[in-house]
Amino acid sequence: QGEQKPFQRVIDVSCGDPHRAGMPPLSFARQVLAVCLYPELLKESSFPVDVRQRAEKLLGACNGGSVGSYSASSCGIPQIQKSVAEFITRRDGGVASDPEDIIFSSGSQKTLKLVLHLLSSGQGPTQTGLLTPLPCPHTLPMLLDEVGVKLVPYQLLEERGWAIDLEELHRALKAARRHCEPRAIYISNPGNPTGHVQDLKTIEEVIRFAASERLVLLVEEVYQDSVFGQDKKFLSYKKVLFEMGASFSESVEMVSFHSISAGTMGECGLRGGYMEVINMDLLVKNFLTSMQGPSSPPVLPQLALEIMVNPPSPGDASYEVFTQEILQKVETLAQNAQRACEFLNAVPGMSCQPAMGGVFLYPRLHLPAEIIQEAQRSGLRADVLYCKKLLEEEGVCLGPGSENGHDDENYHIRLCISAPTAVLEDVLKRLRSFHLWIQDRHH
Amino acid sequence: QGEQKPFQRVIDVSCGDPHRAGMPPLSFARQVLAVCLYPELLKESSFPVDVRQRAEKLLGACNGGSVGSYSASSCGIPQIQKSVAEFITRRDGGVASDPEDIIFSSGSQKTLKLVLHLLSSGQGPTQTGLLTPLPCPHTLPMLLDEVGVKLVPYQLLEERGWAIDLEELHRALKAARRHCEPRAIYISNPGNPTGHVQDLKTIEEVIRFAASERLVLLVEEVYQDSVFGQDKKFLSYKKVLFEMGASFSESVEMVSFHSISAGTMGECGLRGGYMEVINMDLLVKNFLTSMQGPSSPPVLPQLALEIMVNPPSPGDASYEVFTQEILQKVETLAQNAQRACEFLNAVPGMSCQPAMGGVFLYPRLHLPAEIIQEAQRSGLRADVLYCKKLLEEEGVCLGPGSENGHDDENYHIRLCISAPTAVLEDVLKRLRSFHLWIQDRHH
Ligand SMILES: Cc1ncc(COP(=O)(O)O)c(C=O)c1O
Ligand SMILES: Cc1ncc(COP(=O)(O)O)c(C=O)c1O
Repeated sequence: QGEQKPFQRVIDVSCGDPHRAGMPPLSFARQVLAVCLYPELLKESSFPVDVRQRAEKLLGACNGGSVGSYSASSCGIPQIQKSVAEFITRRDGGVASDPEDIIFSSGSQKTLKLVLHLLSSGQGPTQTGLLTPLPCPHTLPMLLDEVGVKLVPYQLLEERGWAIDLEELHRALKAARRHCEPRAIYISNPGNPTGHVQDLKTIEEVIRFAASERLVLLVEEVYQDSVFGQDKKFLSYKKVLFEMGASFSESVEMVSFHSISAGTMGECGLRGGYMEVINMDLLVKNFLTSMQGPSSPPVLPQLALEIMVNPPSPGDASYEVFTQEILQKVETLAQNAQRACEFLNAVPGMSCQPAMGGVFLYPRLHLPAEIIQEAQRSGLRADVLYCKKLLEEEGVCLGPGSENGHDDENYHIRLCISAPTAVLEDVLKRLRSFHLWIQDRHH
Repeated sequence: QGEQKPFQRVIDVSCGDPHRAGMPPLSFARQVLAVCLYPELLKESSFPVDVRQRAEKLLGACNGGSVGSYSASSCGIPQIQKSVAEFITRRDGGVASDPEDIIFSSGSQKTLKLVLHLLSSGQGPTQTGLLTPLPCPHTLPMLLDEVGVKLVPYQLLEERGWAIDLEELHRALKAARRHCEPRAIYISNPGNPTGHVQDLKTIEEVIRFAASERLVLLVEEVYQDSVFGQDKKFLSYKKVLFEMGASFSESVEMVSFHSISAGTMGECGLRGGYMEVINMDLLVKNFLTSMQGPSSPPVLPQLALEIMVNPPSPGDASYEVFTQEILQKVETLAQNAQRACEFLNAVPGMSCQPAMGGVFLYPRLHLPAEIIQEAQRSGLRADVLYCKKLLEEEGVCLGPGSENGHDDENYHIRLCISAPTAVLEDVLKRLRSFHLWIQDRHH
């Protein structure tokens, strides 16, 4: 409204939207997509040869050799379903993936909504409940509301780096059974917004829990390529499930979600991804495919997905540059995570668990009683008021922990660390100066 | 299955998918999109200056200046909503369009499904019915089935070039009221698959009918830029509605659908379009926007839509080429329509109404009794059997009229004429040879 502000521009790091924050796209991906859109570029010599080869191959998989045609069926382009299944098989050290289990999506949130819609039924004590970690991705509570599924909270253990706890799962399930019918459990690994990366033992426990309680496993693994914690690595639920033997691998119903929005691709604007659907009824699979229609899925996000699961190999002309860009991104994430965590832990009245993967930090705020009371007077939660003031005073947009489902007296904020280092520094400085000001004002 | 066939390749002209059939894309559109994906191309001098300017402008409207970021809101990019509204206002000779009435879609079929879903309610005599032209677009009957809306047929008048008839509308409505609750009327203009283009009088009649019977008007106007019949021009329902005065323009509920798949753009693979929602409750509008989510619509289809509604202007570097390409496309359509119609009318046992717009012809088949009996024996409709055999014998895939909702003893086939002239010639020759063979065999 024309008011003078002490900052030049607003920085929004409340969502996982790396390009918006200034992270560059992967050159190989954008080059291939540009050539697919305008094949005349094939004649220009400025692109590496593998860009041209990949574009020709992808166009060959499109109807009429054009990204302008509908894809073959409502399942999308069969060759790309196959590429995704091969990627999963490689990733999981040989545990086979069936191309028919791969369903393309216009973003993982959309397919998650479809799956939840399918699970949704009943009212009151028969209403479907979803075991949901707190904190959970900030998009989830609203989504559950929309599809009429009850959020059944299980607390992650902050003091243990936001680990999942088996006893807590049992407690949560038991408590919930009085109010609704829990039919599924949601997992985000690497964790959004916690940055926690689950280990083998935890995953096995969760799978056993899901199996014995007959819960469908809904696993968001969109940050699988963004693990940077010392000695941490990504383990897929699928791999663990299949290594637990047939009694599990042939019975536990599971959906794993992946997305081109997340991780090193970060192509949020293209809207694409896939889910792998395991041990689900064929009817369910067909329903999920048809619900996304009518008509076939968009072509370009499928091509981007193919590039994500089939990056350049050693020897390819783009290999060096591609590998550099990926390394750079993961390196930036790792450095940002460490830098931000140390920085925030040094601010009085803040504490932050280190992140091992993903793109968020989720620090805790120790707020003066006065701001909590002020918030109560204006009918807001204190973390919401805090973020509102932070935006007004410093032009920094962070997410309040309320959006991540937290509604107790522990206040948190969420910030995306997939941003250029200079942007992150700017965010941290403005945040500290605001936080000190808030505390000062109230002492 | 390795069997030898007398043809080299299958030609599929059963759907409106011009790029698949070999029609070239619009260079300007593809150039701008390629640059938006890979802005490094801005440095290359080979693109016309307005391509670069447009790409810069569009990127400026994207969050973070990148097609890789989520759009501003679930409504999409506000500047593009505005561009679309301005396009409609220009098209309709000044009848204003409100950007807030524009809802982006991932293809018009998807939004049509959402709207029908919203209208769907009841069972038996209270089930929602949709007044639907016969023939209708081949995607519609299945769509109605999926959302539980009853198809209430009104017959178009073949002998009058598939015109709509007011008396028939009244008859259809009256007949339907015994079985369901008709709540809306569907219009395809220019007609899919008929090629009919409605005149002012007809449109006024339909609007008066909808107003007095309190039916929501669902108007697919996706071929609005593809009218080629002598002295025919496209008139939008919106324009006519607003020129009928406030008693209509302030009360008749209407949704008009447009798509980048159709007409001269023909970008079926990108999956994009919009609907303009008129006189609908704000709650309905918000619901339609939110139902498409969660999260924002894909960016590239929005950019393609912007290019569709804002083509190069006189004086722009790309204007000449663009105008040539458009002319060429409409010219090809017009010539194909005329050529195919004359050709088919000269085949014994076929008759075809001339098309005035759109991308389909819908000729009638006069079939020997023997093939009708053969079809009955195998539990198929004769048009379905005909198309099946045509594919097997001649490698040409056309659509049987059954898919367009026709289920009486008049048999039709549907063919897309948005194809290179040589492809169309090939289709026509194979079709004639098959048709003569079928008739011969049975005499
Ligand atoms: C848990 C989680 N799921 C999904 C996504 C991506 O959603 P989509 O694929 O719909 O863009 C994100 C964020 O980028 C996320 O953090
Ligand atoms: C009546 C009609 N609606 C819509 C479309 C396009 O559908 P979509 O926008 O979903 O690609 C077509 C065909 O191209 C059509 O003929």
